[in-house]
Amino acid sequence: MKKKLTLGLFGFGCVGQGLYRVLQETKGLQTEIRRICILNPEKSRSLPAELFTTSREALLDDPEIDVIVELINDPDKALDIVRGAVNRGKDVVTANKRMLAEHLDEILALQKATGRSILYEAAVCGSIPIIRNLEEYYDNDSLSRIEGIFNGSTNYILTRIDEERLSFDEALKAAQDLGFAELDPSLDVEGFDPTFKLSILIAHAFGKRIPPEDILRIGIGKLSPSDLSYARKNNLKIKLVAGAYSTGETITALVAPKFVRDNHALFPIRNEFNAVVVEGSFAEEQLFVGKGAGGNPTGAAVLSDIAALRYGYRYEYRKWQENTKDVSSEPIIEVSVGFENPNLVSFEDFIAFYGGERVGKMNRMWGSVSWQTLRLWAETNGISVVLSPEALPAVRTRLTIAEQALV
Amino acid sequence: MKKKLTLGLFGFGCVGQGLYRVLQETKGLQTEIRRICILNPEKSRSLPAELFTTSREALLDDPEIDVIVELINDPDKALDIVRGAVNRGKDVVTANKRMLAEHLDEILALQKATGRSILYEAAVCGSIPIIRNLEEYYDNDSLSRIEGIFNGSTNYILTRIDEERLSFDEALKAAQDLGFAELDPSLDVEGFDPTFKLSILIAHAFGKRIPPEDILRIGIGKLSPSDLSYARKNNLKIKLVAGAYSTGETITALVAPKFVRDNHALFPIRNEFNAVVVEGSFAEEQLFVGKGAGGNPTGAAVLSDIAALRYGYRYEYRKWQENTKDVSSEPIIEVSVGFENPNLVSFEDFIAFYGGERVGKMNRMWGSVSWQTLRLWAETNGISVVLSPEALPAVRTRLTIAEQALV
Repeated sequence: MKKKLTLGLFGFGCVGQGLYRVLQETKGLQTEIRRICILNPEKSRSLPAELFTTSREALLDDPEIDVIVELINDPDKALDIVRGAVNRGKDVVTANKRMLAEHLDEILALQKATGRSILYEAAVCGSIPIIRNLEEYYDNDSLSRIEGIFNGSTNYILTRIDEERLSFDEALKAAQDLGFAELDPSLDVEGFDPTFKLSILIAHAFGKRIPPEDILRIGIGKLSPSDLSYARKNNLKIKLVAGAYSTGETITALVAPKFVRDNHALFPIRNEFNAVVVEGSFAEEQLFVGKGAGGNPTGAAVLSDIAALRYGYRYEYRKWQENTKDVSSEPIIEVSVGFENPNLVSFEDFIAFYGGERVGKMNRMWGSVSWQTLRLWAETNGISVVLSPEALPAVRTRLTIAEQALV
Repeated sequence: MKKKLTLGLFGFGCVGQGLYRVLQETKGLQTEIRRICILNPEKSRSLPAELFTTSREALLDDPEIDVIVELINDPDKALDIVRGAVNRGKDVVTANKRMLAEHLDEILALQKATGRSILYEAAVCGSIPIIRNLEEYYDNDSLSRIEGIFNGSTNYILTRIDEERLSFDEALKAAQDLGFAELDPSLDVEGFDPTFKLSILIAHAFGKRIPPEDILRIGIGKLSPSDLSYARKNNLKIKLVAGAYSTGETITALVAPKFVRDNHALFPIRNEFNAVVVEGSFAEEQLFVGKGAGGNPTGAAVLSDIAALRYGYRYEYRKWQENTKDVSSEPIIEVSVGFENPNLVSFEDFIAFYGGERVGKMNRMWGSVSWQTLRLWAETNGISVVLSPEALPAVRTRLTIAEQALV
């Protein structure tokens, strides 16, 4: 039953080195890294030179290698590596969330066609075993909500801003210095990274395919000082929340900053920690918290996948429905919108419908708005959008008059 | 691979009825309850009378029944049912924490001897999938700590006392009215229930056998108003914390009230929620939160075990070491001790060693004391013991002079 595994590793950055350390210190796993494929042969490495190669084929064509561990940045190259591996009869462990989110249909098809296993726990919320739990434990419960903080870097930034009153740029710099931030900060700050993760989780939680581009995405780059002081004054925290909400028929999926009350499960999640709330009809609300980044936590997730391959583990995607793309067509969302420029819209008109207040130079409105409006506002200068504490999507058939005037 | 399962159910209380509801509403599981064995045939039931029997054998000897689901209170009868079931080739799902904690050696031996599977996720922290995660996900990481709130009833009581200033008796009554409390309240209040759960988790987390009677147990029944007001003044919460701490060689295991700071993962866990912190060398700190009691959450956990049996799932106990009982022989623990009666010990002598303060009629001391001392104090009238926020066990070779005077 237990196999001795020989690994071929692509990439030797933070997670690759973490995996190497974790493997070194884990007794009795009978697993060795045979070869590491890297991009830059000039970089000095902590391991013997003969372990490294720049040749893909040196790993993919090595019959001794059972498992390809793919930990590189480039999603296109990653997909090619995965294809090459399973087509040569090797199992795969990958942490490439972007590649997975954008090509999940192919990832499923590849596993079906080749009979190989592609595992990717490390791609979503680092050390939190969320995919495994959705696959194994919640496969019978009909879930209504999956919601969380999926990006450690932005949560770290928001925590430092809140607790130490750092400016956005100071906090971003601190996150980068600690190695939490992606190489391209817009992946974090503009919310791309959590949309990739949410797209992957939706497949396991609800069995539906919602590609990242169909997820409403609002980053934290436009949060205003007024939003922050409003949160402080009202004992709210601003979190970049990724959420998918099911009505049974359709899913609404969005990533956006949200005011969170102190009785919300995500309120106490600080710094680089990630958290996932799973709500089922019977199990009710479950919360998982852990480190979402860092070499060791992510390396540990990769290792758990490798260990599971020794027992022939594969995802079953038991909830999967072919050819569904049931994004709710017109959800409406409770939001708070801050307008620095009071002339941008007719605030007096709007407030009659939605309620709101003027705080200094900032006009703040509360109300339910449509998806389209939200998307437009999110892209408009001088408007910052933060979801209300109660924000849950609902479906509505038409816009109110005030909204139509704004769109 | 997927089997159609026929269930025989023992017990039709809160969890049994929850399971029935959950099964009714879960589509596509192909699982039916064939017969329910109950103690009291006179009680009126919501289901047709022919479903019920008072005969054990009507279930155990029915060749159509594949799985026995055991949800009764009596641990001795439960063990007999489990023995009868596996010896007749049936798999078992049980939620009887006391039976499991007291007879875990036999539970393992029965599975080995008969090849049947005994699953018990619902026995520990209701809806939280902690056993499955320890079995499947953390089987390679060497864990240093498992710590949590394993008893919803006492957490509910402590929350109501803290937030609404209820008296202990009022809060206990409220918990009982909501059905959170065990039939025998001392199982909760005196900390027996969490010691059973901790003993079970230790087997899966560390592979060691520590029976409940070897776990230091201090309940919440002796908490004093002084402890509560001290907590409030210092922004601490008092939680009944169950913890097992590994040095790699030995385990220290205890259940005791503890002052918890606002940066501790257990601080925000309110009402009847349970929580488990798992700390691994690589995955670092992981937190799981969910409802620990109630028909639906616990029923959902039972259902997840039943669903797993359709795929032939069994616990592997991969970390299990035969014949170990490595309880740390003399741990010392950081505590705060409140003495209502200042003459009970020589407070002035003690304070010179440990530090402390007088608050009203209460003398409060902070310091590290030995296991034996703690156990003695926990049993002495007029002394309330609460662990310090930093309380982590360490091993020490001999007592200080002040402690010797006290013992």
